[in-house]
Parts: sequence; structure tokens; C-alpha cells
Amino acid sequence: MEGVDHLAHERSKAQFDVDELKIVWAGSRHEFEVSDRIARLVASDPVFRKDNRTMLARKDLFKNTLRKAAHAWKRIIELRLTEEEAKKLRFFVDEPAYTDLHWGMFVPAIQGQGTDEQQAKWLPLAYKMQIIGCYAQTELGHGSNVQGLETTATFDPQADEFIINSPTLTSSKWWPGGLGKISTHAVVYARLITDGQDHGVHGFIVQLRSLEDHLPLPGITVGDIGMKFGSGAYNSMDNGVLRFDHVRIPRDQMLMRVSQVTREGKYMQSNVPRQLVYGTMVFVRKAIVLDASCALSRAVCIATRYSAVRRQFGSQKDGVETQVIDYKTQQHRLFPLLASAYAFRFVGEWLSWLYTDVTQRLQAKDFSTLPEAHACTAGLKSLTTSATADGIEECRKLCGGHGYLSSSGLPELFAVYVPACTYEGDNVVLLLQVARFLMKTVSQLVSGKKPVGTTSYLGRVEHLMQSQPNLRIGFAELSADLIEAAVAHCQLIVVSKFIEKLQQDIPGKGVKEQMQSLCYIYALSLIHKHLGDFVATGCITPKQASLANEQLRSLYTKVRPNAVALVDAFNYTDHYLSSVLGRYDGNVYQNLYDEAWKDPLNESVVPDGYQEYVRPLLKQQLRNARL
Amino acid sequence: MEGVDHLAHERSKAQFDVDELKIVWAGSRHEFEVSDRIARLVASDPVFRKDNRTMLARKDLFKNTLRKAAHAWKRIIELRLTEEEAKKLRFFVDEPAYTDLHWGMFVPAIQGQGTDEQQAKWLPLAYKMQIIGCYAQTELGHGSNVQGLETTATFDPQADEFIINSPTLTSSKWWPGGLGKISTHAVVYARLITDGQDHGVHGFIVQLRSLEDHLPLPGITVGDIGMKFGSGAYNSMDNGVLRFDHVRIPRDQMLMRVSQVTREGKYMQSNVPRQLVYGTMVFVRKAIVLDASCALSRAVCIATRYSAVRRQFGSQKDGVETQVIDYKTQQHRLFPLLASAYAFRFVGEWLSWLYTDVTQRLQAKDFSTLPEAHACTAGLKSLTTSATADGIEECRKLCGGHGYLSSSGLPELFAVYVPACTYEGDNVVLLLQVARFLMKTVSQLVSGKKPVGTTSYLGRVEHLMQSQPNLRIGFAELSADLIEAAVAHCQLIVVSKFIEKLQQDIPGKGVKEQMQSLCYIYALSLIHKHLGDFVATGCITPKQASLANEQLRSLYTKVRPNAVALVDAFNYTDHYLSSVLGRYDGNVYQNLYDEAWKDPLNESVVPDGYQEYVRPLLKQQLRNARL
Repeated sequence: MEGVDHLAHERSKAQFDVDELKIVWAGSRHEFEVSDRIARLVASDPVFRKDNRTMLARKDLFKNTLRKAAHAWKRIIELRLTEEEAKKLRFFVDEPAYTDLHWGMFVPAIQGQGTDEQQAKWLPLAYKMQIIGCYAQTELGHGSNVQGLETTATFDPQADEFIINSPTLTSSKWWPGGLGKISTHAVVYARLITDGQDHGVHGFIVQLRSLEDHLPLPGITVGDIGMKFGSGAYNSMDNGVLRFDHVRIPRDQMLMRVSQVTREGKYMQSNVPRQLVYGTMVFVRKAIVLDASCALSRAVCIATRYSAVRRQFGSQKDGVETQVIDYKTQQHRLFPLLASAYAFRFVGEWLSWLYTDVTQRLQAKDFSTLPEAHACTAGLKSLTTSATADGIEECRKLCGGHGYLSSSGLPELFAVYVPACTYEGDNVVLLLQVARFLMKTVSQLVSGKKPVGTTSYLGRVEHLMQSQPNLRIGFAELSADLIEAAVAHCQLIVVSKFIEKLQQDIPGKGVKEQMQSLCYIYALSLIHKHLGDFVATGCITPKQASLANEQLRSLYTKVRPNAVALVDAFNYTDHYLSSVLGRYDGNVYQNLYDEAWKDPLNESVVPDGYQEYVRPLLKQQLRNARL
Repeated sequence: MEGVDHLAHERSKAQFDVDELKIVWAGSRHEFEVSDRIARLVASDPVFRKDNRTMLARKDLFKNTLRKAAHAWKRIIELRLTEEEAKKLRFFVDEPAYTDLHWGMFVPAIQGQGTDEQQAKWLPLAYKMQIIGCYAQTELGHGSNVQGLETTATFDPQADEFIINSPTLTSSKWWPGGLGKISTHAVVYARLITDGQDHGVHGFIVQLRSLEDHLPLPGITVGDIGMKFGSGAYNSMDNGVLRFDHVRIPRDQMLMRVSQVTREGKYMQSNVPRQLVYGTMVFVRKAIVLDASCALSRAVCIATRYSAVRRQFGSQKDGVETQVIDYKTQQHRLFPLLASAYAFRFVGEWLSWLYTDVTQRLQAKDFSTLPEAHACTAGLKSLTTSATADGIEECRKLCGGHGYLSSSGLPELFAVYVPACTYEGDNVVLLLQVARFLMKTVSQLVSGKKPVGTTSYLGRVEHLMQSQPNLRIGFAELSADLIEAAVAHCQLIVVSKFIEKLQQDIPGKGVKEQMQSLCYIYALSLIHKHLGDFVATGCITPKQASLANEQLRSLYTKVRPNAVALVDAFNYTDHYLSSVLGRYDGNVYQNLYDEAWKDPLNESVVPDGYQEYVRPLLKQQLRNARL
């Protein structure tokens, strides 16, 4: 059965041009071409195989990740890959590694917060990986509240040095990826203290390990924080713990683009606006939204293909059971997730535009759109990552029992994805920020301030004009409800941007029609999910709600013949999916069967432990047996 | 700080008698006493330690589980434990093992489906563990639809034997726990064929492995199906694959209590009612509901204690941050789960009563309540397991980043729990059964048939009397909506049984008041969650919805000072919780820190792989480096 496409019939039913939708999904023909080429490059390289990662013990898993990271770097250099291509290659290697933090946090921190001299000194080393860095912010006792960090950096004017210190157990740096075993350097966030005065949290470049023998430098205690969710997942990463016992660093290793400490120990602000920090936040979070669309679309791709292969109940005329994708209950769970994957893709695209816009304004010292841009990215990060984590798990359940097997790829995908709900801003804390922003916007309506961008609809709501919300009193008490308002606001953005996308010129036979169906499914399933809010506020009547439900069902019927083609449009290789259930050729059962035998437990017919722990039981040779 | 109770202040605030609530939770003073004693016995035995399980590679993990199972058996015999105590001991060992299937499925299958002679022959061997059995039903291509199984058992009248065969790849037995490496025997479900005629699926006792050398018998291919979700979790279990190549067994190994094949090959039904099977289903599923309350309460216990320890933001007068349990957003997510744990406990208790009632009626050949009892257990199994799986994950998120660490116990708990949503009836398939039962009940209203038990409220709904639902047309099309109706029906049962529990005499200062608050929180949070249904159907007005919300918030305030004591009432040992975040003494940070250093990666300061894969990078000795 090798070489047979078990899903050929499904593909033949598609009513649109799949290749054109691939371009839409990728963002452009260029993006598609690069992704496609690099994905195949990674998939064809045996060093990058992923199928054994859940079977490895921690140390073997970690060593194998070091091997992949070194090999990736080698290939990047050998093939003279561009920065864009190198980034894609690391993406398709698809395994958390210390390099994620080096390139994704350490380098950008120096770029964003370092002076020109600091950049000139440190970046060439980092670019060549002659030093490896991580980003040491969170502490054992402090996560979301950065202002609560306890690590101190005290200036010693005599020596012209900072003394980095961990005064308490809870001040231990905790979580930074790449810290535990690999990084030679870190950007460390600590309270700056000069002359007994606390100036709040600032960033410092600190060398952690010797470049000769990799041993931690004096005064530094560093290690891995231990196993995390899943078998492979983030266990390939050395998330670390770090304590400082009065470690001295030169003054010029404080990142001084925004604030400085002079030779005399004077604390000063530069004329570089602090708001720049928000620009970086917008950048990081729009990347997280696009990642969400990747992760969710992977899960949806697996669940959709498997739902077309799997048959259960409802024997038809030929005695063959019904494909589970034909059940309305399956469609009702799966198709809104398919629609969400596309919705998140397009809102992520829009955030990319927003980032460009914000950057240009910042350069022109126009900070007016920053609060709204910040609220957008915070809220959309929260919304899309929560929906994606839940969606991956739902896709796993849609695959029935087999979704629980590691070879389905879904347990790994879930375990490796869920931290996105916590890192770069806990999702609930972010929604509270959005809620606070919305309350502030509403409170300013009465003074005639016109809301802009994604909040402009608030200016059209008559009764809000009369309201005088008190920001202080009641916010904490009503916070659970305000969070729901924040979610609704963000959902509106997602729906609006999906509709705006449809107003663009989209070539390819039937492509726009499919996108339209998905957009409607996304919007209508939100109404279904949050029906209480819509009906209780009189936005829709119960009759309309019921019509919306009917419409949803008929859209499922419309999408059904196109479902497999709609996930083919993600253009994922079998290597990237790493799921027996999601294989392109749909040859699920033979491969599930073959995969099983590769488990270490099957290396011997009689398992290790039988002689000591099973045979004595069967032979009743247990000491003290009295039966 | 050892020996200090960091949660003492929380405990001192409790407004009720915790010891009395412990009795209520346990079900009786006797249950409490046995659980308490056996839990401590297991916790104090070093063989049963669980803290290293996520670090072990598959083979080591599995071997360690065999060791625990043998040790458990040894202790059961040495201490002359009763059946009740032995069961508790296996429960508190808290690691999936082949013995779960031996005691939980193999033995009951023979008890329920074997003739007196078969029971006399096989049960003594099984009771002494001189044979070890599993339950081989699901196949690679067939799960929920038992009637679709493909394995055949063809009677050969010449030899007076059945020939067990796997005709296709998809007919391979797949998933049975204990099958992969350990079981010597299995109850195998196969299509019975006599004289060319297919009589549907029946159970057969088949020996799989030699009792001498543990090798598979001729014609049998058997192995483990590979890694599953999580690092420890169900990987301690040898879920297996099994194929038969014309394996012969004596005729008397067909389980013949309900149907027989005679020496001549004639297929016959005994006078034992087939409905007995449903009695077993009710039994198994009520156990699953009680398990749900255990799993959810564990997660809630961890999240509640940690939420009282963890502080973030909102510095108060003394400069200390606010306990996260004081945030309304945290309470709004956590307290309904706390209430759910109690709600599921009480509905599980009621199911135990229902099982007794059904059993007595079956003995008296009264099958009248079976359909309703079956719908209750199917629906409540689905409802409670889905809510528990989601609830565990929510509790993990409530613990922020640290919930992602294996040492939090929550990833393990989730990975080991989620199969409950699939095994013993996929949760969606079960809800469809409930929906079908409800439709049938409604369709019979018009003919004047009075609905009984949990459906009696349907008889009080005027407009239903006039409705004439057509069971055939529209069911599939409307199945997604019907599932929501089924859920609502089951939620009503849970709320009703909680209220009934409160009508009992409950001793202990303040105990009933606490239970009342939890009951209201459970009910009101359901209204909040399903607001659309309540408002759209005119059951409540938007104004009432808003009042319900207010009431919910004030109940949170009422529960808050009692929260830690309410989870103490579960009486879980630290061993059973196996969570640094959920420790009874609240000494979280020191123990997180200490746990970290036990990871294998920390065995050496410089990690394995540094010389080969990191140093060459730092020293730019990579072959072909061209930078």
C-alpha cells in the first residue's frame, strides 16, 4: 500500500485551487517558496528526525538537541543561508533549543537596549555564536510582576563595577531557557542600586560560564530546573536556575541605551524614549500570534486528515462504516477550529502591519497609537494562545484513542505549545491590561475624546457616552466580568480583520469562496459560544440565534468536501507534522502498527523485570506469601 | 523552615469543622479510616516513591512499575489486607499498572460472563495471580463501535475448538492495558462464527503467553503499542497490540453465561437476561465518576494551596505582594472547580445507590429502570470526565509557570487522567446515547407514558406534551445541539443530587454552610456558563442573570477564608498529591529549588554533548565554517 494516496478521493472533491490558497496562507509567493524549500531541506536530513524524541531519557534527549542545533548552524553556514532562511530552518527543526533564546531574546535585547558601543562589542560575538546568551528575567518568586524582581545590581564606584546579587531564595532566576546548561552569557534583569537608591529593574550583560572549560564563573550557581510537561516537548530545553553571590561586572555591561550610570555613579536617563520598549513587545507578541496559527493549523491538519480516514458506526450500503468527518458532531468541533487557524493567520498578518506602523511612528516620536497597539497585541496574544492550546487538545480528542499515542504527534504539540499561555505575559494578566485600557477609553468618551483604530466602535455606542466608569472602585471586584469584555473586544478585532482580508483581491478559482465560508463559521460559532452575552444585551433575538445555528450547519456542509484540501493548503511536510494520524497519504493503520514496534519496550519479547517481579508472582514465590 | 506550616494562618481562618467534612467527603467514618490508614501506609514505603517517575526512560519506568506491583501484592499478603484495603492500596500506589486490568476488567469479565464452572476453574487462579489477565476488546480500526470488531472465533466441530483469528491489519487488538508485555491470559472479544454463520461479538478466554518462560504461544504476535501522552503517566502501562494467526482454544473457553455453543456447534441463548451487561456498565461508570471527583479534587487542592502561597502584584501596606487567591479572576476560575469536585463526589455517591438499586431490580427481573439508569451513568461519565480533564488543565494554568514543571504534579495528573474521556465510552458517543434516550422519552409523552426518575421533570413541561419529535429524521443533522441538551440534562442531575445531599443531616460546626455555598457556586456558575440557553429560552431575564453574577461574587468572598480548609478536607497525603506546589505545609519555594537539582541533567556541571556540539561552535571549529 506504499505510494497509494488514501485521501485521493477527498482531494478530488475540492472545489478550489489549493496551490493558490497555499500562497494566501504563506502570505506571499516569496514566503511560500522559502518555507517550502527549507521545510523539505530539513525533512530530508536524517539528523533532524523527530520520531524518536519521546522515547529518549532526559540526558539523551538533551544531547540530541545539542547535536541538532550544531548541525543546523553547520547547514546554515555551508549553504550560506540568508537570515530569513536561517530563521525558517530553525523553525522547521521544530524542537525547543537554547538557540531559540540566543536568537530570539538575547540578541534582540542587546539590539534594543544596548548603546551603539555595546552593540558593536557584543553583537558580532553573538552573531557568530562565539558567545551564547539567554534572557534571565523571571525569578522563583516573581513572574508577571517585573517590578517585583529581587535580584540587585549595586554600583560600586570604587571599582567602577556592579555587584550582582541574589539576596533571597525567591530571587533565584528561574525558567530562562538556555540558562541551565549552555549559555555563556545572559541579559540579567536586576534592581539597579546606586548610592543606596533603588532605580528599579534594568538589564545587565553577565558572563556565566568560562569560554574555556564551560564551568560556571565564581559566585555563580547555575543548573537545570528539571522535567516539564510532556515526554519530549520542552525537555529538550535547559530552562535554568541561577543565583549570584556578589558577582562583579564592569559598569559598561549595564544596557545603557535608555538609562545610564556614570563613572561617578550618577543615574541618568538618555533622550531615547522609554516607549521603545513597547515597540519590542508589539514585535514579540505579533510573532506569538502567528505561531498560534501555525500550532493550531498543525493540530487541525492532523485531526482533519484522520477524521477522513477513520470510520466508525453507521454502516452504509457497501458495509463500510461512515467516515467520522461526516458526523455533524465532529464537524461542529473541528470546522470552527479550522476557521480559527485561518482567522489567527490573518489577524497575525495585520499585526505585522501594525508593528511596521508603530515603528515608523516611534521614529517620528508619535506615541499616540501606542496604547491601542499595545492593547491589541496583548489581547490578541492572550486570545489566540488560549484558543490554540484548547484547540490542540480538542483536536487530540477528535482523534479518539489514537490521539493519545505519542505517534499521533498531538500530545507533543500540546505539551510544547501550552507555555505560550504563560510566557511573554500571562494570558489573564494581559486581558486585565486590555480591560483597563477599554475602561480608560470609555471614561474619556464623555470628555469628547474620539476613540481610534480598533476601539473606534466605542464612539458609536450612545449609552457609553453617558457612562462615567470609575477606574479605581470596582475594577478588582468586577475583574472577572471585565476580562470577558476584553475577550469580546479582541474577538471583534479578529473577525474584522478576517472580513478586511476578504475585501482584498484574492486570485485562484474558488479560493475566496472558501475563505468566506471559514470567516462566517468563525463569526457564527462565536455567537453560538457567547450566546448569553448577545441575547442578554438584546444584540440578537433568540429567533436570530436559532437562524445563526442553522446557517452554521449549512456552512459545515459546504466546507465538508473541501476540508482535506483546506488543510493541505498549510503545505506542511510529514516531517513537520510528525504525526502518523496526519500523514499526507492517509496510510494511518499500517504506520501506527509499524511505529509501535520501535518502542524500547519491544526490544525484548520478555520484558526486563519479568524474572524479578512477575515470575515470582505467577509462581507464588513471593516471600511471606500466605494464601 | 522545615516543620513550619506556611499555611497555618489560612487554616486558622476556617469557619467550619474540617475533620467532620473529611468524613462527609470520604462517604463514612469507616471509609475515612481505611483511606487514611492505607494512604499513610503507602506514603511511608520507599518502594512506592513517585518523585522520580518523570525522569525515567520507558524501560526503567516500566520495570519500576513491575517492582511496585509485586511489592504491593507482597504487602497485601503480608498484612492480610481485606479486599477493600487491597483495592485502596492499589489506588494510593497511584501508578497505572497491569494489575488495574487484571483486577478491574479480567476478573469482573469472568465473574459477569462466565458460567459457574468457568468461574470455579479460572477465578481461583486469577485471585492468587497465578495467571494474569487483561481485557482485549478494541482493535486498531475499531473503538466505540463494538459491533464493528473484526477478530473472528470460528467453531471447528471436528476438534471441538474455536479458531481465533485476526483477518486484517485493522482487526489487530490495540490498546488493552497489561497486554503488551505482562498478561498471560486475555478475555478476547471476537465475532463468533458457527457453521458459516456470524453470531456477533462474544468473549473468549485465551492464553497468550507460556506460564513457564513467558514467551507468546504459537500463532500469537504481541507487543507494546509505544509511548503515550506525558513522561510518566500511562507509560508505566503496557498497552498492547495482539494478532492471532488461527489460534485454537477449547470450546469451554468461550464465556458462556449468556450464550453457548454446544458440542455439536449449535448456538444457543441461556435464560440469563442479556440486560445483566448493563448492570456491569453502571458499576464501571459510577466508579469513573468517583475517580473524576478524586482527580479534580487533587488538582484543586494543589491550585488552592499554591494560590494561597503565591503572591503577585498589588503590594499592600507592608510591602508584601497580594496572595493570588485574593484576586477575583483567580477565584472565578478556581472556586467553581472546587465546587465541581464536591458536586461530582456527591453525584458519584448517588450513582453507587443507583447501582445497588439496579442490581436488586435485575435480580427480580425488573428491567424497567435500566434505560434511565444507563442514560444517567453514560451522561454523568461523560460530563464529569470532560469537566475534570479541562479542570485539571485549568488548575495547572492557575499555578502560572510553575504549573508546567513536572514537580508541580499537574502535568502528570492531566496526562494520566485524559484517557478517561475516551475509554469506557467516548464522551461524545455517550452524550449521543443520552440525547437519543431523551428524544425517546419525549416522544412517549404524547402517548401518556410518565417519565421516571431523573427524567420526571419532562412530564411537567406542557409544550413538550404536544411535540412529536421524529427520532429518525433530523437526529444526525441536529446532533450537535442535541448533545448540548444532553449535557444540560446531566447538569440538572448533578445539581439536584447536590441539593438532595444538603437535605441530609450533616453534623459538624459550619460544615453544611460550606457545602451550601459550594452548591450555589456550582449552580450559579453553570448559569453563567450557559447563559445563552437560559436567556434565549426565557428561563431567566438578563436582569436575573446579572443578579446571579453578583450573588456568585459574594459567594466567592464567603468561600475565600475557608478555601484551604475545604481542600484539606480531601485528606490527601503529600505522597498522593506528589506536588511541590500542593504541599500541605506550603513550603513551596525551598522544595521547588531542591527538586530541580535532582534532574539527571544536573548530574554533571558540564552537560554531555558539550564537547561534541557546543564547544566547536563557540570555538568556530565547525567543519566548513565560512564566516
